[in-house]
Amino acid sequence: MGTLPPIDLRSDTITRPDDAMRAAMARAEVGDNVIDTDPTIRELEERAADVLATASALWTPSGTMANLIALSVHLRRGDRFLATRGAHVLTNELGSAAWLAGGMPEPLEHDAGPGRPTPAAVRAAAGTRSGPYYVLRTTLLCLENTHNAAGGAITPPDEHAQLVAAARDVGLNVHLDGARLWNAAAALGLPPAALTVGVDTVSACFSKGLGAPVGSVVAGSAEFVDEARRVRQMLGGGVRQGGVLAAACLVALDRVGELAEDHEKATALATGLAELGWSVGEPQTNIVLAAVPDVRLTLESLRERGVLALPMAGKVRFVLHRDVTAADVDEVLRRIKEGDR
Amino acid sequence: MGTLPPIDLRSDTITRPDDAMRAAMARAEVGDNVIDTDPTIRELEERAADVLATASALWTPSGTMANLIALSVHLRRGDRFLATRGAHVLTNELGSAAWLAGGMPEPLEHDAGPGRPTPAAVRAAAGTRSGPYYVLRTTLLCLENTHNAAGGAITPPDEHAQLVAAARDVGLNVHLDGARLWNAAAALGLPPAALTVGVDTVSACFSKGLGAPVGSVVAGSAEFVDEARRVRQMLGGGVRQGGVLAAACLVALDRVGELAEDHEKATALATGLAELGWSVGEPQTNIVLAAVPDVRLTLESLRERGVLALPMAGKVRFVLHRDVTAADVDEVLRRIKEGDR
Amino acid sequence: MGTLPPIDLRSDTITRPDDAMRAAMARAEVGDNVIDTDPTIRELEERAADVLATASALWTPSGTMANLIALSVHLRRGDRFLATRGAHVLTNELGSAAWLAGGMPEPLEHDAGPGRPTPAAVRAAAGTRSGPYYVLRTTLLCLENTHNAAGGAITPPDEHAQLVAAARDVGLNVHLDGARLWNAAAALGLPPAALTVGVDTVSACFSKGLGAPVGSVVAGSAEFVDEARRVRQMLGGGVRQGGVLAAACLVALDRVGELAEDHEKATALATGLAELGWSVGEPQTNIVLAAVPDVRLTLESLRERGVLALPMAGKVRFVLHRDVTAADVDEVLRRIKEGDR
Amino acid sequence: MGTLPPIDLRSDTITRPDDAMRAAMARAEVGDNVIDTDPTIRELEERAADVLATASALWTPSGTMANLIALSVHLRRGDRFLATRGAHVLTNELGSAAWLAGGMPEPLEHDAGPGRPTPAAVRAAAGTRSGPYYVLRTTLLCLENTHNAAGGAITPPDEHAQLVAAARDVGLNVHLDGARLWNAAAALGLPPAALTVGVDTVSACFSKGLGAPVGSVVAGSAEFVDEARRVRQMLGGGVRQGGVLAAACLVALDRVGELAEDHEKATALATGLAELGWSVGEPQTNIVLAAVPDVRLTLESLRERGVLALPMAGKVRFVLHRDVTAADVDEVLRRIKEGDR
Repeated sequence: MGTLPPIDLRSDTITRPDDAMRAAMARAEVGDNVIDTDPTIRELEERAADVLATASALWTPSGTMANLIALSVHLRRGDRFLATRGAHVLTNELGSAAWLAGGMPEPLEHDAGPGRPTPAAVRAAAGTRSGPYYVLRTTLLCLENTHNAAGGAITPPDEHAQLVAAARDVGLNVHLDGARLWNAAAALGLPPAALTVGVDTVSACFSKGLGAPVGSVVAGSAEFVDEARRVRQMLGGGVRQGGVLAAACLVALDRVGELAEDHEKATALATGLAELGWSVGEPQTNIVLAAVPDVRLTLESLRERGVLALPMAGKVRFVLHRDVTAADVDEVLRRIKEGDR
Repeated sequence: MGTLPPIDLRSDTITRPDDAMRAAMARAEVGDNVIDTDPTIRELEERAADVLATASALWTPSGTMANLIALSVHLRRGDRFLATRGAHVLTNELGSAAWLAGGMPEPLEHDAGPGRPTPAAVRAAAGTRSGPYYVLRTTLLCLENTHNAAGGAITPPDEHAQLVAAARDVGLNVHLDGARLWNAAAALGLPPAALTVGVDTVSACFSKGLGAPVGSVVAGSAEFVDEARRVRQMLGGGVRQGGVLAAACLVALDRVGELAEDHEKATALATGLAELGWSVGEPQTNIVLAAVPDVRLTLESLRERGVLALPMAGKVRFVLHRDVTAADVDEVLRRIKEGDR
Repeated sequence: MGTLPPIDLRSDTITRPDDAMRAAMARAEVGDNVIDTDPTIRELEERAADVLATASALWTPSGTMANLIALSVHLRRGDRFLATRGAHVLTNELGSAAWLAGGMPEPLEHDAGPGRPTPAAVRAAAGTRSGPYYVLRTTLLCLENTHNAAGGAITPPDEHAQLVAAARDVGLNVHLDGARLWNAAAALGLPPAALTVGVDTVSACFSKGLGAPVGSVVAGSAEFVDEARRVRQMLGGGVRQGGVLAAACLVALDRVGELAEDHEKATALATGLAELGWSVGEPQTNIVLAAVPDVRLTLESLRERGVLALPMAGKVRFVLHRDVTAADVDEVLRRIKEGDR
Repeated sequence: MGTLPPIDLRSDTITRPDDAMRAAMARAEVGDNVIDTDPTIRELEERAADVLATASALWTPSGTMANLIALSVHLRRGDRFLATRGAHVLTNELGSAAWLAGGMPEPLEHDAGPGRPTPAAVRAAAGTRSGPYYVLRTTLLCLENTHNAAGGAITPPDEHAQLVAAARDVGLNVHLDGARLWNAAAALGLPPAALTVGVDTVSACFSKGLGAPVGSVVAGSAEFVDEARRVRQMLGGGVRQGGVLAAACLVALDRVGELAEDHEKATALATGLAELGWSVGEPQTNIVLAAVPDVRLTLESLRERGVLALPMAGKVRFVLHRDVTAADVDEVLRRIKEGDR
C-alpha cells in the first residue's frame, strides 16, 4: 500500500503553475523593480489594488512577508494588536509580528463563529482609549478571511463590516490577512472588494489555490504602500525582474471563479468522510478539518495509504486545490475506507 | 467628602522607606557597580541568591527590568513562551517580552485555580518537540507567584513542582516572576526557596510590600547572571553607587515575615466588603479583587470618599501594605458603608 | 538630444533574462519549497555549494536577504562587526545589519587597496579578546569581493587568505558578501572557490551580471543553512514553486566566464573617458568610477544625452553588463564627446 | 610596592556620595514615580530642565539609558545617525543605538578639533535630503560635550551653534550627550544652557564628577519627555521611590562650579607627566589622555604602583574627580617617577 501514488492534500500552496501560466511567465515584459518599476509587477499591483478596492498595492514574494510588512508599518514598540486565536500572524510566521514588527498580540476567541470574534469582544479587548503611559496601547485588529485554522471559515460581509466598525469605534486600525480571500469571494459569489470594506490594509496570495508559483500583495493607501516598499527592501524582498512571477499572478487573478470547484471537492470529501464515520465539519471553502483521537497517528496512517495531510489546530487538515481532481477525492475516500477494514 | 485624607490601596509599590531603611541607606558602603562591584549590592545579591536557592543573583532597578533581562536571555527570535493569562510579562511590561526579548507569547488559562495552569495545559501548549523548521519553538514557561491579576493568588509548592516537571518533560525552561514571591512564602509559612524549586531563573522585588524604595533581583545560574549583567548594562540598568538602594533592600529582606500582617488586613477588608454585599473572593495574600458592575464608576466613587484603588483584570483591586494600618481598613469600610447610604 | 534611446549603465541588476533563460524557467520542475524541497532550487543549492566550496547553500530572493540572513545568524545584541567602509551591508541594506541582525558596525578603511583593509587593521579593530562585560564584543568580519563602492575592486586570493587568517587570530567569524564574486573569479581566471577559502559564510547573486531575473544564495555549513532557512522563513523569504527562478539561476551559473566580456567593455569605457579628460581609475572588473566636480550635475547631463548612471561613493558609477554591447560603449563615448562641444 | 593604597583615576563615576548628599537622601520626600510622581524626582526634573534650557526633563537611572531613550525616540528602522568617532553611544553602550534604537551609525571624524566634527562634514555625511526609497535616511546628529574619547574635549558654544545649524540645514535632529556637560560649562565659566542651544534633546549625568550615586536626565520638549517616559518604562527604568536618589542629584547640581578644581588637578597631572617625559595633551577638563607604546603594559605597571587608570581610544586615560586631592596627584606623580627609576 505504501507504493500508492500519493494524493497531496497538505496545502493549496503545492499547486504548480500550468502551461498557460508558464507561457505567460516566458513572455513577461520585465524591468529592475528595485531601481525602476517592473512593468508586469506594476500591472499586477494596479489590478490587485483595483480588485481589492485599495488605492495602491505592493507585490511581495510571500504572504508571510505581506503580513509582516503590514504589521511593521502599523505597529510600534508598546503597541498591542488583536488577532483571532490561531491566526496565521500568531502561529505561522515565526513570531515576526512580535519580535520584528514590535507588537504584543492578544488572541480573540471565535465567539461569533469559526474564524470570527464578536464586535463586542473587539471593543472589550481594546481597552479604554486613554490609559496611563505605562500600559500597552491597542492599535490594530487583524482579521483573517478565510480563516485557515478555523477550517477555511468565511467571515461574511455584514459581520466583517461590524468588526471593522467596532475597531474604528475604539480607535483601532484594521489589517485583513486575505491569503485566501479569493476563496471567500468565490464561495459567496461576491467580488473580493466586498470583503475588504473599511480595512486599512489587506494582504492576498496568488500562490495558494490560484496556482501561481510565487507571489502575494499587500495593499492599502498610497502612503502605506510607500512605506511598505521601504520595509520590503529592508527585509530583502525587493527583487529585480520579478515580472516573470507577476505574470503568473496575473493569470492567477483570472481564476478566482474556478476556486468554486475546489469548494465542491471539499464538500465531497467531507461528506464522504462523514459517511465513513469521521468527525468533520461542513467545509465553507476548500479546507476540511477532521477531529481525530490522535492526529499524529492518523496522519501516519493516511500517509501509508498515500494520502498526505497536515496537522492544524489540533485536527487533521485536508486542503483541496486545482492539482487534485474529483476522482482523486473518490480515490482518497476509497483508500481510507479500505484502510479501515 | 472629597476632603477626606486619602487611604491609598492602589499598590504595595507606594510603600515608603521608613527611618530604619533610610538610616541603612545613609550609612551604606558603596562602590562603582559597573566597573567594580558595589559591596552592598554584592551583599544583597549573595543573600538573595541564598534565599532564592539559586547559584547567583543580580540587582536590577525594577521588577520589569528583572523579567525583561530573564526573558532576553531565555528567548531568541522564533521562540514562543507560555505565560498565564494576565501575567505581568504579558500585560504590564509594554510588550518588551515580545519586541525586545523576542518571544511570541501564548497565554495559558488558569485551569488549575487562580493564577495556575494545569501541568496538562503546559504539556499541550508546548507542542511536539520536533516540529518543522518553519514553526515557532516553544522554549519557556513563565510562572508568576503570587499572581497579581489573579488577586495575589498562590501557587503552592506541590503544584509548582508539577508545573516545573511538566515544563521539563516537554523541554521548556522555566522563569518565575516572583515579584511578590515573599507574600506567597509568608502566607504559607515556608521559606521562599520552597517556591523556586526547579526553576531556571526567578525575579523578586523589594520595592513592593517589603517597602524598599527601589530594587529587584533576577537570579539563576552563574552563567545566566553573567549574561544577565551584560543585558542589564545594554538596557541602561547598570548603576554606579547603587549600594544606597541595596542597603534598603537588605533591610527589606528581613521583613518577609511581616507580610503576614498585610494578609490579615486583606482578609479584614474582604470580610468587611462581603458584609457590605460586595462580590469579593477570599484573599490569599495582600490583594483583594472585587467584581463590580462598572469598574470605572466604582473607582471614581471610591476616590470621592478618599479610598484609592486601581482596575485589574476587569475588577477593582485593593492592595494592602505596610503603610496602611488595621484602623485604616476599618476607616475604608466605614467610608464605603457611609457612601452606600 | 533627450530623445536618444537610453543606454543604461546604472547597474548590472537591470539585465533581463534572455530566451534561453526563459525557456529554462518555462520547463523547470517545481515543488513547494516551504513544506517540501523544490527540486530545481535543490539542484541550484547543491551546485552553488559546490562552486562556492561550502557544505551547503540556501536560495534567497535577493542578495540583501542573503546578507541579512547571514548576519542575523552570526550576530547577537552586544556584538560588533567589521566591514569595509562603503560596504553594501553598511550602506545599501537600510541598516538591517544593525536594527535587525543586531550588530554595531565598525567601518574599516581600504588601507591595503581599493576594497581591502589590511590584516593589521582587522587585528587592531577587533580589540582584545577578553574585555569586560560592559563592552561590545567584536565577532565578525564582513568582506566584499568584488567591492561595489570601491569600483568593482578585487581582493586577490592571497590577500583574502591573509584577511581570513587575521580574523581567525582574533577570534572573528568571516562572512563574504560575494554578490559579484563571479566577476572577481572571471577577472582572475580562477574558480570562485579560490576566493571563498576559509570563510564561514558567503553570499552570491545571480541577478546581477549573470542576468537571472531573481535570486541569490547564502552558503556555509549545514548547521548554518539549517538556521538560515529558519531566518529566511521569518523574513518572508520562503517561497513556494521558486524552481522557476532557480532554473534561471542555473543557466546563469554557466555564464560566469562570459563576465570577462563585461570587463573588456568596462576597460574600453574607462579608456575612452580618460581620453576625454575624465578622471577615472582603471577598472578591475565591470564597474567604472569617475570623479567629477558635481555628481548630480554630471548625472543629469549624461541623462540628457541618453546615458544612465548612478552615484556611488561620491563619484559617478557606470556598470557594464550583458545587456549593453561594445558598440553601446562607443555610442556612450560619442554622446559624451558630443556633449562636451 | 603592590601594597600602596590605590589612587583611583579610572573614572569620575567612582565618586561616592558625601555626608551632605547622604543626609539629603535620608530626608528626601518620596512617592511612587511610576503611578504618581515622586516629588523629589519632579523637583530635580524641573531644575534640570531649567538648567538645560529645555521644556521638560526625565530622570533615568543611568546616562546609558538616557541616551538610549533619546535615540529610541529619535530613530526608526532605516534611519542613519551621525556621531563623532569614539562617541559613547557608538562604543560604550553595547550597540543599543543600533539593535534597540534602530539606527545605523556613521562615525564622523574629529576634523574641527578633538571631539568636534566640522559643520561641512555634517552636511556632507547627511547626504541629499531626497534619496530614493531604498537608501538609509540620515535623521540625527549626536554630539558629545565634553567628549570622553577625545580626552574630555570641549565643543565651545560658537562651534556647537554652527554644528547645530549645519544639522538643521540638512534636516537632522540633534541629540547632545552631555554626560559631562557640566565640566564643559565649568571650564568655560558659562551656564550649561549656553551649550545646549538649538538641540532637540540632551542627556546629562549626576553620577560622574558631581558625585551623586545614581542618576541622569534626558531632556527635551514636553512631547519628547512624554514618549521618553514611556520608553523608560519599557526598558525597566521606571522606579518607585526614586526621590532618595534624586535628592542626591539635586545636591550634585549645586556643585557644578566645583568641577573647576578637578580641571586644575588634571592640569597638574598632565604637567607633571609631561615633565616626566610622557606624551600627554593639555587637558581641557578633568581627563588626561597619555599616548604610550603599550597601553596594557603601562596600565599594569601603574597598577603595581597603586595608580589605577583605564584604556581609552588607544591611550591611557586618567580621570580627575572630587574623591582625589591635589596631594593625591602629587603622590601619583611621585609613584610614577619612582617606578621609572
